[in-house]
Amino acid sequence: MTISLIGLGLIGGSFAKDLRAAGLADELVGADASPEHAARALTLGLVDRVVTVEEALALGDAVLLAVPVDAIMALLPRALDTVRADQTVIDLGSTKCQLAEAVREHPNRERYIAAHPMAGTENAGPDAALSGLFKGKTVLLCDLEWSAPDACKTALEIFHAVGLKFEFMTSEQHDRHAAYVSHLSHVAAYALSLAVQTEEKAGYAVPRLAGGGFASTVRLAKSAPAMWVPIFQQNREHVLKAVDAFAARLGEFRDALAAGDQARLETLIREANHIRDLL
Amino acid sequence: MTISLIGLGLIGGSFAKDLRAAGLADELVGADASPEHAARALTLGLVDRVVTVEEALALGDAVLLAVPVDAIMALLPRALDTVRADQTVIDLGSTKCQLAEAVREHPNRERYIAAHPMAGTENAGPDAALSGLFKGKTVLLCDLEWSAPDACKTALEIFHAVGLKFEFMTSEQHDRHAAYVSHLSHVAAYALSLAVQTEEKAGYAVPRLAGGGFASTVRLAKSAPAMWVPIFQQNREHVLKAVDAFAARLGEFRDALAAGDQARLETLIREANHIRDLL
Repeated sequence: MTISLIGLGLIGGSFAKDLRAAGLADELVGADASPEHAARALTLGLVDRVVTVEEALALGDAVLLAVPVDAIMALLPRALDTVRADQTVIDLGSTKCQLAEAVREHPNRERYIAAHPMAGTENAGPDAALSGLFKGKTVLLCDLEWSAPDACKTALEIFHAVGLKFEFMTSEQHDRHAAYVSHLSHVAAYALSLAVQTEEKAGYAVPRLAGGGFASTVRLAKSAPAMWVPIFQQNREHVLKAVDAFAARLGEFRDALAAGDQARLETLIREANHIRDLL
Repeated sequence: MTISLIGLGLIGGSFAKDLRAAGLADELVGADASPEHAARALTLGLVDRVVTVEEALALGDAVLLAVPVDAIMALLPRALDTVRADQTVIDLGSTKCQLAEAVREHPNRERYIAAHPMAGTENAGPDAALSGLFKGKTVLLCDLEWSAPDACKTALEIFHAVGLKFEFMTSEQHDRHAAYVSHLSHVAAYALSLAVQTEEKAGYAVPRLAGGGFASTVRLAKSAPAMWVPIFQQNREHVLKAVDAFAARLGEFRDALAAGDQARLETLIREANHIRDLL
């Protein structure tokens, strides 16, 4: 089959690498809003041809939307307007509720698959594409009861080919989960980066002294606003709840620290340590 | 020379591995409060002999204290009581001010080196010891003007042998820096783990769905209370300031999110992204 990738950055580019390695696609065609990224993706051999968005929508037996979620919101209804009954359109964005709402009544809704591969890095663009990025990770598949069986089959073939495991849920469940296991981590990392930089500007050479623990905790703070502002915007209510839960637990820790309550600190840390059994 | 390691866990064990590889020690002897850890360290070949703490203090040309900071606080004055003029006692703990205060007036103060290698993992015990853990990392050396020149030379030889770079500062500067670049990261990770587990208990299979970003951000939440409660206790004032700075920046992010202020979110994320240039 022909697979179209719209968006040739970290996610689109990584799909291109693994789909090519899996031999699933007869042809990989790609489109990107940035001519530089499109040219670079061609140079890197991520796709066989660079085409326009319209051509990508027309050519793909499967069309993967791997652009920021505000761009997906603009692109998906347009894709469904012209989709044929033998095509499958798959979005790979990090939010789902607003998108689900936007196409709920579309006559071609059943050609669409809502998917979120829980894999990524803090980097962006075609050069950030990684072989094996998805291997052993999970793709969250949403509202599949609204998608045609053959569209589901095509999507599962593609995700299986790159090594993803499947989880099935509603858009609403997705956005609640994602707020905690993905979006909140980004907020925490951004706030950590901001706090440390505030101190660094006051005269401390903080980053020069940092070890691997700080680097690990702050890594996601390198993630770009073009991707993350729309995610926070679209999943605002759930992210707000997650941030408030985080601030509340942080406050408990702070109060135990301020009170010099070692027993309480130990209890909180033991509870936090339980993440070792869960990950 | 003979090097004594008191504490045969992650830090002591990793020093043992790299010092042996560097060929710096004629003999490596070790002591550990846990007989199981001591026996395991011997089985793993981390040390040549397991001895008592008293023997370790007597035998080492250099004595490395690699135990939790509350244990260092109890051990260091005792070590200086019996130290000979040809011995060097080096503490490897994560806090320095209270320790500096405790031995400031000790007649053998100059045989002591206050050091903090900015390297570690979330794991503990002899099996957590890693070859190369310190390579390319930084050791913060504190108040060296109070240490004898030959003690400084011995310490720098040992740290150079395992690949550490040197930074020199006061205990006070150390504890302020460490609050931001190390201790705060742990508080943030603990709070993230607590927040996510709260949600998971409410019925969401959060950890099963998490990707690599969450794992990276929450990693330090696996760190043990036996090590971290004493650190938070000893560096309470600086950690409280760091946590408050973190909570304030988190609050800014939350307010921008609640207000749907995309421009403000973008500004905050761009500022946070600057960590990319600093690490």
